[in-house]
Amino acid sequence: MHIPLNTRFSQRFGLASPIALAPMALAAGGALAAACARAGALGLVGGGYGELAWTQREYALAQQAADTGRIGCGFIVWKLDQDASALDWVLEQKPRAIMLSFGDPRPYARRIAAAGAELLFQVQRVDQVPMALEAGASVIIGQGGEAGGHGMNALHGRATITLVPELADWLAANSPQTMLLAAGGIADARTLAAVRVLGADGALVGSRLWATQESLAPAGAKAQAVETGGDGTARSRVFDILRRKDWPAPYDFRAIRNALHRKWESRLEASSYDEARAEYDAGVKAGDFTRAHATVGEAAGLIHDLPPAAQVIERMSAGAAEILGGD
Amino acid sequence: MHIPLNTRFSQRFGLASPIALAPMALAAGGALAAACARAGALGLVGGGYGELAWTQREYALAQQAADTGRIGCGFIVWKLDQDASALDWVLEQKPRAIMLSFGDPRPYARRIAAAGAELLFQVQRVDQVPMALEAGASVIIGQGGEAGGHGMNALHGRATITLVPELADWLAANSPQTMLLAAGGIADARTLAAVRVLGADGALVGSRLWATQESLAPAGAKAQAVETGGDGTARSRVFDILRRKDWPAPYDFRAIRNALHRKWESRLEASSYDEARAEYDAGVKAGDFTRAHATVGEAAGLIHDLPPAAQVIERMSAGAAEILGGD
Repeated sequence: MHIPLNTRFSQRFGLASPIALAPMALAAGGALAAACARAGALGLVGGGYGELAWTQREYALAQQAADTGRIGCGFIVWKLDQDASALDWVLEQKPRAIMLSFGDPRPYARRIAAAGAELLFQVQRVDQVPMALEAGASVIIGQGGEAGGHGMNALHGRATITLVPELADWLAANSPQTMLLAAGGIADARTLAAVRVLGADGALVGSRLWATQESLAPAGAKAQAVETGGDGTARSRVFDILRRKDWPAPYDFRAIRNALHRKWESRLEASSYDEARAEYDAGVKAGDFTRAHATVGEAAGLIHDLPPAAQVIERMSAGAAEILGGD
Repeated sequence: MHIPLNTRFSQRFGLASPIALAPMALAAGGALAAACARAGALGLVGGGYGELAWTQREYALAQQAADTGRIGCGFIVWKLDQDASALDWVLEQKPRAIMLSFGDPRPYARRIAAAGAELLFQVQRVDQVPMALEAGASVIIGQGGEAGGHGMNALHGRATITLVPELADWLAANSPQTMLLAAGGIADARTLAAVRVLGADGALVGSRLWATQESLAPAGAKAQAVETGGDGTARSRVFDILRRKDWPAPYDFRAIRNALHRKWESRLEASSYDEARAEYDAGVKAGDFTRAHATVGEAAGLIHDLPPAAQVIERMSAGAAEILGGD
């Protein structure tokens, strides 16, 4: 069987590679999204927490630098529920795609469709798919817990290798026109080829594109990720608590399990929040990533350099095509 | 690139498929191990907790039913540290392979080598590999947290899709003659093909072979697994506590997240152990799997029937060969 990298996902979005940039808050800015779009991937700006000024600046930068029709923006739904002004502003720019995650997308369905944008919705479980289809999602993204940043906690979440084929089966039976991307742990040619084998039409790539020249992640965080293997990250509530991010259950956060995480992971209680937060804040101020967080997933073990984003996309695509015997 | 299913692992052990039966305690008995061996896979009896009488009976049954040279046995190392009599008895039978997991294998290296058995050691992290190589392991098994039964908890463990390629890279650089199997979430043709793409020489298959006619798992547990999707399992300490299994950190246990698990998962404290255990014990006695545990991993979502084990191996191998364009 021949498994092509030229998929219905790459065709729909006019891509050279079936790859979308994960819209990582504060890392996937305009420069990274534009670099991905120019390299033939879908460039999703990290609208994240919905800060209007940041999103306006970075989205405009992306559009200006890559007039490709391959630019979109991603948002955290439970933050949109508080303030959707950044989404509304982006929709006025006629984005190719809006990616939503971490909440109920249905209240936003009508305005996204009216703007002519495709809706990509990220799930962490199969049971979230019907809600996404009701919202008109044309692409479901299945995110495993190995992903960096936010995801679902160990009690509720899934891993990429089981979630993707199960989603593929579900969609084949219930909504065969809906496309499927895999997210979580996809960072090289092998992992991209593997998710094609598992039934995904492409991949959402976070950590590997976070660790590039164009990413807005701090240089010290990127350097730490290069040095850290996949054993060195953990999924927990620690950094959300330290950063005063009021994430609802059942979501938590994967980052490098640095010295401050180790210190507090088994004894963080409301009474100690002030002390732990002071240590974290001092670490951020000092640019010290033994205390500040570096948001990378288990794929850290597959990341050994900090190239331009185009090189990452080229390496992953060319290598996966070679493995799959395709094009 | 052509990716064969005829690998150095299948060649070394004289297998028709690069599959080993996971030695699941109390499920992988003699009948299941023999069925796997006759179907061309490596049949590992679930020596598990090291109960001598159970192991003697089931191992003898396996050897008797499948005189194939493809029979071995697996043990939990921290239990061997308390009583290794079952291992010593199995070694007298000249097994083809001994699989160890969950502890330091080095104290057992000499006697396993002296018996002429190959040592397969299961890791959950890359940093456990040097210890396994010191113990003379010829096969490293990388187990992701999506696996059913025991594994490493969310703070320390890994997922198959990142662990396997990272182990493959580590072994290629440091011990290229050592073979690699993937474990965790491998239950159909796609997942078997995917781990070959990720760099594994084969797969250790648990849940999918647990859900077969020959498995000694209770019929009610198997029926529940067929009905349950991959969203319906969880990794936690709950069932270890309820079963009075004194597992050391950082290991925990994935099973179906049934009603009793849900009831206790967020409020199980030493003061409530007696009450929770009484409910569990009553469930076991009644064969009621809303209370008793069914030990299956996230692959439950890929399991829809209870065929003979040979059919599982045939389906997975033939399907994976078709995907990979190999043989």
